Amino acid sequence: MSLIVTGTIGIDTVYTPAGEHREGVLGGSCAYFAAAASFYGPVRLVAAVGDDFPDSHHATLSRFERIDTAGLEVRKGSKTFRWGGKYLDNMDHRESLFTELNVLEEAPPVVPDSFKDSEYVFLANMHPGLQADLLSQIESPKLAVADTMDLWIDVARDDLAALLKKVDGLVLNYDEAEQYTGTKNPVTAGRRILDEGPTFVVVKKGEHGAILVHRDGVAALPAYPAETVIDPTGAGDTFAGGMMGHLARTNPSDPADFDTLRRAMAHGTIIASFTIETFSLDRLAGLTDDKINARYAEFASMVAIG
Amino acid sequence: MSLIVTGTIGIDTVYTPAGEHREGVLGGSCAYFAAAASFYGPVRLVAAVGDDFPDSHHATLSRFERIDTAGLEVRKGSKTFRWGGKYLDNMDHRESLFTELNVLEEAPPVVPDSFKDSEYVFLANMHPGLQADLLSQIESPKLAVADTMDLWIDVARDDLAALLKKVDGLVLNYDEAEQYTGTKNPVTAGRRILDEGPTFVVVKKGEHGAILVHRDGVAALPAYPAETVIDPTGAGDTFAGGMMGHLARTNPSDPADFDTLRRAMAHGTIIASFTIETFSLDRLAGLTDDKINARYAEFASMVAIG
Repeated sequence: MSLIVTGTIGIDTVYTPAGEHREGVLGGSCAYFAAAASFYGPVRLVAAVGDDFPDSHHATLSRFERIDTAGLEVRKGSKTFRWGGKYLDNMDHRESLFTELNVLEEAPPVVPDSFKDSEYVFLANMHPGLQADLLSQIESPKLAVADTMDLWIDVARDDLAALLKKVDGLVLNYDEAEQYTGTKNPVTAGRRILDEGPTFVVVKKGEHGAILVHRDGVAALPAYPAETVIDPTGAGDTFAGGMMGHLARTNPSDPADFDTLRRAMAHGTIIASFTIETFSLDRLAGLTDDKINARYAEFASMVAIG
Repeated sequence: MSLIVTGTIGIDTVYTPAGEHREGVLGGSCAYFAAAASFYGPVRLVAAVGDDFPDSHHATLSRFERIDTAGLEVRKGSKTFRWGGKYLDNMDHRESLFTELNVLEEAPPVVPDSFKDSEYVFLANMHPGLQADLLSQIESPKLAVADTMDLWIDVARDDLAALLKKVDGLVLNYDEAEQYTGTKNPVTAGRRILDEGPTFVVVKKGEHGAILVHRDGVAALPAYPAETVIDPTGAGDTFAGGMMGHLARTNPSDPADFDTLRRAMAHGTIIASFTIETFSLDRLAGLTDDKINARYAEFASMVAIG
């Protein structure tokens, strides 16, 4: 079924604790999500970049053949969003070195008419007011899920609360769940968010996995125990891409069902475990379905205890 | 099959972030382990206390009918080990308020002759030199597993390294794995410890679950996503108690087998999830097999993704 993602496409500079770094690589929540989701089926991308967006990054995106870039706006005279960050010793924590919003400060990208019948909608991390605006352009979403970040909880809390009334699910980090709700326990935090509207919340814990807090139950999954962790950028976005991609591919009668989501999270877990093995989308660009399926099977047997 | 545990029995004072506290409650690695393991079968306890050890704590231990206290020495004129601690906002971190070693500074307890044929041996947290000494008194262990802590890594590293050559498995916390090996990645840390002798290492991550690093593979399990967390004291010891108790009960031909251990860890996960719901052994003292089995089944279905 039709899956659409809106969010940012950026040019990233990333420093790792091991001393390696990459300048000007392809990044952004939407790019990571779409690349991951494309392993499961077609994905429609809506985002804006400037005319400084390098041909090589266009080429990288086009390597993911099932990404439909009809909604990728290249704006003359605008500059692409740029972000630089440094991972601290613990790969789950990072500091931003610089953030140049550029095109993100302009009018949001337009959803092409041909995308308006999308059934699966992922609102990757951006201002919750824009997320709501983009969601309103989709005619009849079957499942709408949003991501968010600490910045929006700080500066756009009301917009985020309004968005929560319109989406089926929210995906956010462990620290952000605490920030939004004031409670450290991720299950309690998740329940408080459910009280504001959604059917489910996925609390992402990086290397420690994820917790699903749903009106019908609670579930936890570990991360795949990866030994090769070079650059965690995009892990959360590709997790969401695998989760939503699997849901769109299987198109269950109720994609917000507890057990369905729990299994979809496992697919997100596996695609995310590849993402972090190198910088940017490099690992995904060379990934095959066979490798994904083999790791999924390994992971499934790793947690099979029934 | 026969399971033996050696370690500390203490009198604890515990402060929680919620402002609650308990003074003088039953604690110690050996007490927690034995209480948990007793749900799976008989468990032989070897530890020493002073004559200040209250009757009420003896009574609590005797509520766990399958704990054999023939190896519990009550020393006239000695004082019981006492520990006070305060949990910080994050329940996974605590500070020690006081530590009175008392009887732990005297000669170690003696393994009764009737316990020397024990097949499953758990060396709960204490000085690794004493752990090795106690292990040497067991005639023919089928599976020997040790726990340790940051203090011994600091002050008795050589003794710990020597112990690693004698045990099948080591159980330790995430921070301790890093402390011992100098690497943050728990899988890499585990592999380095394997190089020193054991067949497997279990890296405990508190609320984030545990990772098994084994010569034959790596596995991860989440913790049970608990909403009621009052006092995490003893979570790791009862995790080990459930794991070893399950192994002793089922007595597989190779208890150090990867898949066998992976499943045993799930039993540890569940019994630990009860421990933290109240102070001391209070929750375990009122626990039934039915409750354990129901939560195990819930957990198994929560992580079933195959």
